[in-house]
Amino acid sequence: MYIAKILTTLRKTILDPQGKAVENSLKSLGYDKITDTRIGKFIELKINAGSKAEAEKIAEEACKKLLANPVMEDYTFEITEGES
Amino acid sequence: MYIAKILTTLRKTILDPQGKAVENSLKSLGYDKITDTRIGKFIELKINAGSKAEAEKIAEEACKKLLANPVMEDYTFEITEGES
Repeated sequence: MYIAKILTTLRKTILDPQGKAVENSLKSLGYDKITDTRIGKFIELKINAGSKAEAEKIAEEACKKLLANPVMEDYTFEITEGES
Repeated sequence: MYIAKILTTLRKTILDPQGKAVENSLKSLGYDKITDTRIGKFIELKINAGSKAEAEKIAEEACKKLLANPVMEDYTFEITEGES
């Protein structure tokens, strides 16, 4: 049993209106030291794979095929061994 | 300049329909080794704070007041020093 923690974020060149809205809300709460707010997704999966390499392969494919939009988003993930 | 990377996730006891939908989609793509899919938010902020302790305080307050719903969500964050 492996646990994959996946982060997807909009590419740096793409405008992030959700992040901008949150940044404006933070500013109106008085947090004017916060800038460059960007929002992405955090996806946690359990993978019943036989090896860490197999779990990495499955996570990579899942990101490419479903979890991230490869045109607009970047993704990173890390695999850790979890209790089954 | 510090960078805060914040993760918010629904509490374990709360049903995550978005995660369940993604899990079903993955299964229909043939990834039947993937279970327990949960989806949260990933928020990245830059904080112009004078010290790491101040940046942590600002990030903690921002999570409590705006970024996470304390009734339904847990949050974790880490602060790293970034180039200004």
